[in-house]
Amino acid sequence: MNKLGIVKRNILRADRAAVERLGHFGVATVHEAMGRVGLMKPYMRPIYCGARLSGTAVTVLLHPGDNWMMHVAAEQIQSGDIVVAALSADSCDGFFGDLLATSFMARGATALVIDAGVRDVKELTAMGFPVWSKGISAKGTIKATLGSVNIPVVCAGALVNPGDVIVADDDGVVVVPAEWAQKTAEAAEAREANEGEKRAKLAAGVLGLDMYKMREPLERAGLRYID
Amino acid sequence: MNKLGIVKRNILRADRAAVERLGHFGVATVHEAMGRVGLMKPYMRPIYCGARLSGTAVTVLLHPGDNWMMHVAAEQIQSGDIVVAALSADSCDGFFGDLLATSFMARGATALVIDAGVRDVKELTAMGFPVWSKGISAKGTIKATLGSVNIPVVCAGALVNPGDVIVADDDGVVVVPAEWAQKTAEAAEAREANEGEKRAKLAAGVLGLDMYKMREPLERAGLRYID
Amino acid sequence: MNKLGIVKRNILRADRAAVERLGHFGVATVHEAMGRVGLMKPYMRPIYCGARLSGTAVTVLLHPGDNWMMHVAAEQIQSGDIVVAALSADSCDGFFGDLLATSFMARGATALVIDAGVRDVKELTAMGFPVWSKGISAKGTIKATLGSVNIPVVCAGALVNPGDVIVADDDGVVVVPAEWAQKTAEAAEAREANEGEKRAKLAAGVLGLDMYKMREPLERAGLRYID
Amino acid sequence: MNKLGIVKRNILRADRAAVERLGHFGVATVHEAMGRVGLMKPYMRPIYCGARLSGTAVTVLLHPGDNWMMHVAAEQIQSGDIVVAALSADSCDGFFGDLLATSFMARGATALVIDAGVRDVKELTAMGFPVWSKGISAKGTIKATLGSVNIPVVCAGALVNPGDVIVADDDGVVVVPAEWAQKTAEAAEAREANEGEKRAKLAAGVLGLDMYKMREPLERAGLRYID
Amino acid sequence: MNKLGIVKRNILRADRAAVERLGHFGVATVHEAMGRVGLMKPYMRPIYCGARLSGTAVTVLLHPGDNWMMHVAAEQIQSGDIVVAALSADSCDGFFGDLLATSFMARGATALVIDAGVRDVKELTAMGFPVWSKGISAKGTIKATLGSVNIPVVCAGALVNPGDVIVADDDGVVVVPAEWAQKTAEAAEAREANEGEKRAKLAAGVLGLDMYKMREPLERAGLRYID
Amino acid sequence: MNKLGIVKRNILRADRAAVERLGHFGVATVHEAMGRVGLMKPYMRPIYCGARLSGTAVTVLLHPGDNWMMHVAAEQIQSGDIVVAALSADSCDGFFGDLLATSFMARGATALVIDAGVRDVKELTAMGFPVWSKGISAKGTIKATLGSVNIPVVCAGALVNPGDVIVADDDGVVVVPAEWAQKTAEAAEAREANEGEKRAKLAAGVLGLDMYKMREPLERAGLRYID
Repeated sequence: MNKLGIVKRNILRADRAAVERLGHFGVATVHEAMGRVGLMKPYMRPIYCGARLSGTAVTVLLHPGDNWMMHVAAEQIQSGDIVVAALSADSCDGFFGDLLATSFMARGATALVIDAGVRDVKELTAMGFPVWSKGISAKGTIKATLGSVNIPVVCAGALVNPGDVIVADDDGVVVVPAEWAQKTAEAAEAREANEGEKRAKLAAGVLGLDMYKMREPLERAGLRYID
Repeated sequence: MNKLGIVKRNILRADRAAVERLGHFGVATVHEAMGRVGLMKPYMRPIYCGARLSGTAVTVLLHPGDNWMMHVAAEQIQSGDIVVAALSADSCDGFFGDLLATSFMARGATALVIDAGVRDVKELTAMGFPVWSKGISAKGTIKATLGSVNIPVVCAGALVNPGDVIVADDDGVVVVPAEWAQKTAEAAEAREANEGEKRAKLAAGVLGLDMYKMREPLERAGLRYID
Repeated sequence: MNKLGIVKRNILRADRAAVERLGHFGVATVHEAMGRVGLMKPYMRPIYCGARLSGTAVTVLLHPGDNWMMHVAAEQIQSGDIVVAALSADSCDGFFGDLLATSFMARGATALVIDAGVRDVKELTAMGFPVWSKGISAKGTIKATLGSVNIPVVCAGALVNPGDVIVADDDGVVVVPAEWAQKTAEAAEAREANEGEKRAKLAAGVLGLDMYKMREPLERAGLRYID
Repeated sequence: MNKLGIVKRNILRADRAAVERLGHFGVATVHEAMGRVGLMKPYMRPIYCGARLSGTAVTVLLHPGDNWMMHVAAEQIQSGDIVVAALSADSCDGFFGDLLATSFMARGATALVIDAGVRDVKELTAMGFPVWSKGISAKGTIKATLGSVNIPVVCAGALVNPGDVIVADDDGVVVVPAEWAQKTAEAAEAREANEGEKRAKLAAGVLGLDMYKMREPLERAGLRYID
Repeated sequence: MNKLGIVKRNILRADRAAVERLGHFGVATVHEAMGRVGLMKPYMRPIYCGARLSGTAVTVLLHPGDNWMMHVAAEQIQSGDIVVAALSADSCDGFFGDLLATSFMARGATALVIDAGVRDVKELTAMGFPVWSKGISAKGTIKATLGSVNIPVVCAGALVNPGDVIVADDDGVVVVPAEWAQKTAEAAEAREANEGEKRAKLAAGVLGLDMYKMREPLERAGLRYID
Repeated sequence: MNKLGIVKRNILRADRAAVERLGHFGVATVHEAMGRVGLMKPYMRPIYCGARLSGTAVTVLLHPGDNWMMHVAAEQIQSGDIVVAALSADSCDGFFGDLLATSFMARGATALVIDAGVRDVKELTAMGFPVWSKGISAKGTIKATLGSVNIPVVCAGALVNPGDVIVADDDGVVVVPAEWAQKTAEAAEAREANEGEKRAKLAAGVLGLDMYKMREPLERAGLRYID
C-alpha cells in the first residue's frame, strides 16, 4: 500500500521533439493551449528572471526538513530532465544548494522545480542553473527519511507524472502530460501564429472591442455608456 | 442602484502640468506631501525595478477570473493615462498580458496598476510597459461578466476616482486626488528642496539627533543612556 | 523592570578579524557551521541582489509606526556595524529611507537588517546601501515613542545581542553570537575547504549516493528500486 | 488638502427603518441584492459566532499603533451605530478592548468593525459586544497621532461613508450606501421570498439543473456525459 | 486532450463497509495508517467544530468565480458521498451556500470539501451540514464556464479520484484511495488498539522515553544532560 | 559552541505565588503591566476558547518535522509547568497529539505553547488540555534529530527562558521573565484595580475624552470639529 521508499528507474519520457517545441513558448501560451489546466500555484517563482525552458520531469517526493531523496533522484536524471520536487507537507527550508546543482547539471538536468525553499541562490545564479521554488532559505535539511522517486506527485497544486513535460518561465510553471505533448505543441503553435496578426493590429490602434467583435455582446449584456 | 455595467466616457483628468511635476518625485515623497494618505497596500509590486512615473487614472472594476472590461477600458485611454484595475473580490489570475499591453500602449497608456495578477512578464519587460500588480500568474481569464469603467474604485486598499493622479515607483503606488494635484506637487517640491540640505548635513556626519533637535524631547520622554 | 527607553553605549563587539573572515562565506555555510541555529526567518529579503557581507550588530527596538529610535541608534554606530532593527509588534511600514541611509553610511554602517518595511529603495540601491527587510512600503512613521538601543532583541525570529556578528546575502540573514565568531569562522573554513573537493567530484559525474556512501543506509531503510 | 484631524459631527444616517429591515438578512443575501459590490475582504472575522446585525456607520481613520481617535469617535456615536475603523496602513495590534467597548455600548453602539486587531475577546464575548476584525492581539496602542472621524474611509477593501448601512454576520461584513438602503432592503426581501420556494423544491430532491433550466445551456456550452 | 466539460456518471466507489470503518478514526490516525500521505493542506478548516465523518468522493473541478458545475455535480451524488470541489486557480469566493446544501443533503451527500470559500455558514451550521473549506466569503459566483465532474482533481494539495474515501474532522481532511480503503481501515484499527494501552501507561506517569525505549538511541545521538 | 543536544535538568522557576497571581489577569493586562514587551505573535491561537492560565516554562527546541525532543521534555515537567516548544525553522506539522498530552498531563503540565501545528484537537479539547499553536495539522513527525530542552528559545517571536512565566488566554500568549514575575503581578493588580473605576464611569456614559482629559491635547494637536 505504501508508496514511500520506491524508486522507479524506467519512466516513459514525453517525445523529445515535442518537448523542444514546447520550450519555444511561454508558460501562458502553453497553459492556454492545454485548456487552462496544469498550472502550478503562482507562488512558484524563479530565483532569477529571464529563463524560459522545457524538459521532462523526474519526480521526487520529500518530507519536510529532509532532502535525502534528492541524491537518489540525481541518479535517475537523464539529459534534458527537469527535477520536480514535491513535499508531503509544507516546508520552506533550503532543500537544494550549489553542490546538488553541480551534481544535477553533471547528470544533464536543466532545471529544478521545488515546492519548498532553495539556498545558495547567488551561486546558482552564477552557475546559470534555474530554479523555480516557493522561497529562499539558508536552512539546511537532514537525510533520515525515505521518500520516493518517479512516482506521481502533487507539486504546488499540480499533478506531475514522471516523464511529463515541464515548461517554465517568469510567469511560472506548467505541466503538460506526456501524452498531450504533441497536441499541445501544435495548439501552442497555432495560437502563437494567430497572435502575431492580432498584435500588429492592436499596435496599429485597432481596439480589441472591434477585433474580437465584442461591442454587440457587451451591449446585449447591458453595458451602458454615459457621459 | 447598480453601479456595474457602466462606462463613463468623459472624465475630468488632473491638470497635466501638475501630473508631470508629481512624476519627478518618488512615491514616498508624494505620500508625505499629501499627509500620509492615499497609499496602496505594499503588496503592489512592479514587475521590473527602476520605473518611476505619474499619470491620470482610467479606472476599471473587474470580477475574479474575468477581464472583459479591460478591452472596454482600452477605448477610454488617452495619452498619459494609467489604467487602474480593481477587483470585486480577491484574485491573482493573470488578467493582463502582452496583447493587451500592445493595445494599451497604442492608445497612449503608460502603465497598468492592477490589484490582481499579470502574465507575459518577460514580454512586458522587453516592451518596457511597467505594471504594478499583486502577483504574477499565467492563469488566463474569461470574458463573460460586466464590470465598469471610470467609476470610483478601491484598488489595493486605496480609493481611486477616474482622473486622479497615480504616482508609482519601486516603493509602490500612491493616489493623488485630481483636485489635490497642484498643491501636492508644490508640497513635494518644498519637501524635496528641504531634503537636499538635510542630506548634505547627514552625509557630513551631522546626526539627526542634532539636526532635528531631538535630544531634549528624547530626554523629556525618559530616554536613559547607560554604559 | 522596563527595558524600554534605554541606550547602551558601550557594547562588546565581536572580534573584528573573525567578523571579516565570516564575511567570506555565504549565509548557508555559516548557518551550517554553527549547527543550524541563528537564522532569521526567510521572509527577510535583500532590496537588491548580489550583496554578501558581515558586520557587528547595533540593535534597536522600535514600535509599529515609529522610527524615532533609528536616530538614536545612528549615534551608536561605529565603522563596520550593521544596524539590526526589531519591532515590538508586526508592521511593514517604511521605517527607513535614503536620508537615514545617508546618516548611517556617514557613521560607518554597512547595512541595515529590519523586521519591517523600508522605502526609497531605488535611491538605496543607487547608493549601494544594502538592506534586508520584511517588505517595501512608502508609508512613513512618526517619532513619538521610546524604544531602546543596544539591548537584546528578537529580529525576524532570531535573538540578536548587540555586538553579535550578522552575515547576510541573497539567502537571508544569520546571527553569530559574538563569543562564537572565531569558532564559527573556523568551522566555516573547514566546511568550505571540504566542499571544493566534493564539488569537483560531483561536477565530474560522481553521485552523492556514492560520494556520501548512502546506498547502504538507504537500502537498510527499505528503499526499493523498481522498473 | 489634509483630511486628517477632522471630526464631522453631523452626518446623514441611512433611514432607520431600512437599516432594520436589512438586519433581517444575511450578508450574502444583502450582497447579492446590491449587485455583488460593497463586501469587505473575507479576512474580516467575528470574534464569536452567531451574531447578525445591521447599523449605521460612524467611521474613524486610525494610524498603525495609535487608537487615540477611538475616544474621539465615541462621542459621535448615536444609538444603533456601528463604529467602522479603518487604518492608514496595515496593523494587527489590539486597538480595542473591554474598556472602549463599555464606552461604546454606553453610547449606543451595537458593534465594531475594525481593519486591525482587538483584545480582551473573552470579556467582549461575555459582554455580548460583537466585533468583526482582522485579528486578535493583546498588543496595545498609544495615543499620539491625529486621524479623523466621520470621513469616507476604505475599510478592509470597502469604501464606507459615514451614515452608510453596515450588515454583518458569520459570513463577513457588507456596506450598503445610505442612499441604497431602501432599495437594497426591497431587493433582499424579494430575493428571500423567492428563495423559500427554491429551498422547498431542492429539499424535495428537485435538481438545480432542472429548477434553473441549466441542462440546455450546459449542453450548448459543450458539456459531455460519459460512463 | 481537454479534460474540461466532462461528467463521468459511473464511478467506482470505495467499499462501503471500509468507508464506514474509516469513519470511526480521526484524520491523524488514518493518515498515519496510510504511511503519511494523502493529507490536504492544513488551511482546510471545518466551518464548525466537532464533526468527524467519512464518505466517498464525488469530485468537481471549478473555475474561479464560477460554481456552475456544483449543480451538475448534485445530480451525480449518491447516499454517503462527500463532494470534493477543486479549483483551477486560487479563489476564496463563496461557491456554496444553504440552497446548494439543501440540494446536496436531499441527494444524500454528507459533507462538502472545497478548496475555496463558502457562505451562509450560520445556516449551514444550523442545518448540520459540515463543510471543510479554505475560507468563508459572502461573495457569490456566476454560472458561465464549464468545469468537470468526477475526474481526478487536486484539492488543497491532495490528489482525489472519484470514489476515493474522504475522512474529515477538526484536524483536517485526508484522502484514502479507494483501493487502499480496506487495508487502511485495518491498519487504523491495529494502530488504535495499540494506542489504548499506550495511553493508559502514559496516564499512569510512564514516560515515552521508557515506553518507546528512546533513552539509548538519544544517548547514542549525543544527547547530554546538564544541571 | 553547539547548543543542540542539551537537556538542562535544574532550572530556576519563577516564584510560584507570583505565577498564580499573574494567572488571574488577562494577557492584555499583563502585557501592559510589563511595558508592552514579551508578547508572542498574534498567530498563536488557542485550540478552544475560554481558557486563561499561567505557568512556568519548560522550553524545548524542535526541528521541522521532528518531535523527538517532546518526549525528552516530558521528563523535565513539574506540576504547574507549561511546555513552550520553539522550532528551528517554520513548520506547521502536527508535533503534538492526545498521547503526548496524556503524558504531559500526567507529569503535571497545564498547557502547551507551540510555534507549529498540533493534531487530535477534538480529543485535546475533550481532555481539557489547552494548547496555543500556530495551526492545526494531522501531519505527524519523525524522531530522528536532536534538539534541546530548557535552553533559551525564541517562540513565535518572543524570547523564553526556562522558568519564565507564561500567561495565555484567548488574546494570545505573553512571556514574563522569571525575575519580573513579582513586580509584574503587582503592576497588573494596580492596573486592574484602576480599571474597575474607569469601567464604571464609562458604563455610566462618561467619555474617555473627559475621563482621560484628552480634549485639550487633541485641540493642541490640531483636531478640528466640523458640521
